[in-house]
Amino acid sequence: MHRSRIGVVLVDHPVESYDAAAAFWASARGSDRRGDPNDADDPYESLDPVGGLHLELQRTGSGTPARVHLDIESDDVTAEVNRLEALGGRVADLRDDYAIMEDPGGLVFCVVPVQGRADFDANATTWR
Amino acid sequence: MHRSRIGVVLVDHPVESYDAAAAFWASARGSDRRGDPNDADDPYESLDPVGGLHLELQRTGSGTPARVHLDIESDDVTAEVNRLEALGGRVADLRDDYAIMEDPGGLVFCVVPVQGRADFDANATTWR
Repeated sequence: MHRSRIGVVLVDHPVESYDAAAAFWASARGSDRRGDPNDADDPYESLDPVGGLHLELQRTGSGTPARVHLDIESDDVTAEVNRLEALGGRVADLRDDYAIMEDPGGLVFCVVPVQGRADFDANATTWR
Repeated sequence: MHRSRIGVVLVDHPVESYDAAAAFWASARGSDRRGDPNDADDPYESLDPVGGLHLELQRTGSGTPARVHLDIESDDVTAEVNRLEALGGRVADLRDDYAIMEDPGGLVFCVVPVQGRADFDANATTWR
């Protein structure tokens, strides 16, 4: 008998894009950075936990690479895209009600409307 | 004023590996699959939410691709690796206290010791 759970999501960037991407994600999350990514034995930084994350599977087009990507939910997608652009994110494609973006190292993520209202209300950060 | 949060993590697979990978992740999570990935307008399936997920940044080697990867925490890494191998996962590299694995579509993830005890106790699934 043993136990397991999906407990951690890691955003991995090579040396070349690490600092810009780490600064982006910490600000996107509104978290302090904790850790020393220059410690070769422990090249990690921790951000705050996110509450009640949802797990989805997506069937993508033939020949596309397998990957994991994150969605940022917002009650104002346009305002959130603007905030993330100011932090160094880039819009790759604007769709009807969501945006496909890339972080400063080219990693794809999306900004989407609220998917889970109870989790959103419990865990969202307010930006003024 | 608006609000946002990192709310969803998506595992994306092309048509070629989707079914094997989706079956793997649903069983790895112990979740039913909900949705119809063959609906071209909504090619998603939902699994159960995971509680209190931790977000980490990792500085990887020069020239490696930017990516997101998941860690599965377990109180018995060897037993969990064996369980996931039986589901179609493959061990890519065994380290001292964790394993680097790939799902049936070649997507990298890790099996690691418990990282956050309170979240683990609250959210882990027991396998008998």
